[in-house]
Amino acid sequence: MNAPLAALANDRFLRALKRQPVDRTPVWIMRQAGRYLPEYRATRARAGSFMKLCQTPELACEVSLQPVDRFPLDAAILFSDILTIPDAMGLGLSFAEGEGPRFARPLRSKQDIDRLGLPDMASDLGYVTDAVRMIRHELHGRVPLIGFSGSPWTLACYMIEGGGSEHFARAKSLLWDDPASAHRLLALLARTVAAYLGAQIAAGAQAVMVFDTWGGALSLPHYHEFSLRYLREVAALLPRGDGAARVPLILFSKGCGHSLEAQAETGADAIGLDWTIALDDARRRVGDRVALQGNVDPVVLYAGTSAIRAEAIRAVHDFGPHPGHVFNLGHGIHPTMDPEKLRLLIDTVHRESAALFASA
Amino acid sequence: MNAPLAALANDRFLRALKRQPVDRTPVWIMRQAGRYLPEYRATRARAGSFMKLCQTPELACEVSLQPVDRFPLDAAILFSDILTIPDAMGLGLSFAEGEGPRFARPLRSKQDIDRLGLPDMASDLGYVTDAVRMIRHELHGRVPLIGFSGSPWTLACYMIEGGGSEHFARAKSLLWDDPASAHRLLALLARTVAAYLGAQIAAGAQAVMVFDTWGGALSLPHYHEFSLRYLREVAALLPRGDGAARVPLILFSKGCGHSLEAQAETGADAIGLDWTIALDDARRRVGDRVALQGNVDPVVLYAGTSAIRAEAIRAVHDFGPHPGHVFNLGHGIHPTMDPEKLRLLIDTVHRESAALFASA
Repeated sequence: MNAPLAALANDRFLRALKRQPVDRTPVWIMRQAGRYLPEYRATRARAGSFMKLCQTPELACEVSLQPVDRFPLDAAILFSDILTIPDAMGLGLSFAEGEGPRFARPLRSKQDIDRLGLPDMASDLGYVTDAVRMIRHELHGRVPLIGFSGSPWTLACYMIEGGGSEHFARAKSLLWDDPASAHRLLALLARTVAAYLGAQIAAGAQAVMVFDTWGGALSLPHYHEFSLRYLREVAALLPRGDGAARVPLILFSKGCGHSLEAQAETGADAIGLDWTIALDDARRRVGDRVALQGNVDPVVLYAGTSAIRAEAIRAVHDFGPHPGHVFNLGHGIHPTMDPEKLRLLIDTVHRESAALFASA
Repeated sequence: MNAPLAALANDRFLRALKRQPVDRTPVWIMRQAGRYLPEYRATRARAGSFMKLCQTPELACEVSLQPVDRFPLDAAILFSDILTIPDAMGLGLSFAEGEGPRFARPLRSKQDIDRLGLPDMASDLGYVTDAVRMIRHELHGRVPLIGFSGSPWTLACYMIEGGGSEHFARAKSLLWDDPASAHRLLALLARTVAAYLGAQIAAGAQAVMVFDTWGGALSLPHYHEFSLRYLREVAALLPRGDGAARVPLILFSKGCGHSLEAQAETGADAIGLDWTIALDDARRRVGDRVALQGNVDPVVLYAGTSAIRAEAIRAVHDFGPHPGHVFNLGHGIHPTMDPEKLRLLIDTVHRESAALFASA
């Protein structure tokens, strides 16, 4: 593990994040290491439990590499869960078979929040940084490795609700009824997320992404006060180097196209988009401040091959022959999707963008 | 039932929809006749089934009046289900206890779509117009009565999926794989929705609303091609009188704040807003073309009384002392919410807006 790391053979993804020209649009896919792959399901079965899979660096490494081995993807992403942080804070994460995540000790009072502290990265989350180091080593420089975390607001939702939620009644009520405690919790989570992503960068992550999955559940003023503000704090606090060595940061607030301009001012290098935004409109709105990542509706992978091809081509042309586009879906690939359809999507984006850039 | 109808005692709601000045902001609440009311649950229990409740005009009338009897609301809304149209088209609607709607004969092929025809309003949907007539009569002109329908796209979702759906894989695949059949289905549904709302107007509905609950699930180009286009058709085809007697039309595409300007050009009199849009921004974007309805996050009704008061006051001031605001939540009230908190919300909007208009 201490051998020098191989030089990066494919830097399209990092170049696009820095809005530098590329020969073709880089592609990676949210949840690319996941249940839609039979090889993932085999490793998952071997692990015995989802938690075991996340917490065993060798297994997390194995599944992180699977999509990169199978498809011509331009980036790998760490396999982990967004709830590692609350678990490290002592909330007791578990996954019942066929159900969502559950916390044994959710935040139920102001006192529960006041009791929380910054987890220790080495002792509480070392299994994640071990996985990052192992994946970097095993990638042999083929493509860059992305680290990630949930956003402060999204983590707070799970921590307060105790698991998934349809309406976030408890989490939103905290914002309304005790905003001071909410801000204290979110400020602590922003520091924790920055430290966690910083540890992933120190271990070898070449880009990092923050998933603000539940930003879109908030009213516009609450999104700005309780989600975006702490995305800005993560960006400000994150130790990620300087100049050419600076590690790019991607933010993705799902369902928050209303605030694209504000997202572009957070200090992030790239903004994730879902499919309710057009790439050309988005590019006009953010100008040359940030790169954009997205944004095809994943459900197209249930449609026929000509529809998949058409959506890939449309995305490439909507963005146009400009630097700064990373192709992705607007949400994670679903467990029941056909891997071969993903291959078609990737190949079409690569081919179409190569032709567009060659002719531009 | 043939006695002349009483003159309207409270016309605030209709005046606001026409952007005329009012003494205070009118309030009604989506799902105001519903499970959060103990008197609704009593009638529902007496009915035996949800379908029976919808299809028995006396019972539908009874529950439509309950919220108006209890609260100082400025409008009543017909109690019904948005899936009456597909049921009338022969798809066989049922509700299993504790589950969502199910169709016995969902649309599974092009042939299933080609076989559909316009239902007969009198024989297939007469129970709805009977309920409208009865509610109008029983209201004695206290407040206006709103009729409603699901939007063509939203109805198509349920008809293709066979019930509720998380990702709309079948419905969206039809748009991608066989757009011609999708357009045929949506055009038929637009004619049907217009005829259905026209029949409700003929029976006495004084305003009508179209719920495009799943517009926000679509990509931006698909929203315009497959949802908004057919909202425009409904507006164009709807027989709703002329001049001062013209019956106002409200459109609500949930999660589609991205296309507010286009919604304002459909021919509708008012546009519904969810809480991800600020009322002042929305007013600036649509100018004086349409009234606006909304938009407080319903989840605030789970929070404390001072938060509820603050959200009501904020909504009134966000819109400001201009004509053309109907207060509502941004989504229906939840079954587990406390009716007394709704009373506080209504009273606060009334009081705050009366003070604002008096001082303006």
